[in-house]
Amino acid sequence: MHALIIIAHGSRRSASNDEIRELVMQLKTMAHGFAHIEAAFLELTEPSINSACEALIAKGCTKISCLPYFLAAGNHIIRDIPGIIAELREKHPDTDITQLAYIGAHPEMPNLLLKQIQAAN
Amino acid sequence: MHALIIIAHGSRRSASNDEIRELVMQLKTMAHGFAHIEAAFLELTEPSINSACEALIAKGCTKISCLPYFLAAGNHIIRDIPGIIAELREKHPDTDITQLAYIGAHPEMPNLLLKQIQAAN
Repeated sequence: MHALIIIAHGSRRSASNDEIRELVMQLKTMAHGFAHIEAAFLELTEPSINSACEALIAKGCTKISCLPYFLAAGNHIIRDIPGIIAELREKHPDTDITQLAYIGAHPEMPNLLLKQIQAAN
Repeated sequence: MHALIIIAHGSRRSASNDEIRELVMQLKTMAHGFAHIEAAFLELTEPSINSACEALIAKGCTKISCLPYFLAAGNHIIRDIPGIIAELREKHPDTDITQLAYIGAHPEMPNLLLKQIQAAN
């Protein structure tokens, strides 16, 4: 049973976190092949990556793909999220937990940025 | 003379900031109608939004559009960036400085996220 977690940074502003939750709700209607799709947050709000993973493992998920909803490969992508995933893997050696490429790395991002610029002009 | 500033958060990891600068370099080859396109950072690295704007005004730009390269409307989008822009406007009443919609607000973002998921599976 394969699950997907969209990891966002998390904000002190609850409307910002709700925006991520709504995006994940929308994604649930679009992405196929996952038994569960959940939002998780690196900091400032819940669920944490840890608690989201634990809940999915408790539901019987044997494979969890974590996609960071981040724009650039800062320390969160290079150090913090890999560290959390490494600990989860150690605790759950029978669960296949992986970190996917962050959204900002998608080759179409420059084009989306161009579209957002054009929409404003 | 119309300029565009792409505002990123900024990182302690220089490679992450370079990633933004490279994106802006790429954008320069794609976006037309701007005399200048520059990267600026909210924190942790240079140039700041303030110094990027001041440099563009010194070059003669009369209109500066600032696009936040952020995924969700947290306090940076709602409070911090508008605060910086409000101060710049007050200091430069003859320059038309505006904050455009952040990249995460683009309606095609869920679809790009789906593509990033599919690329990994």
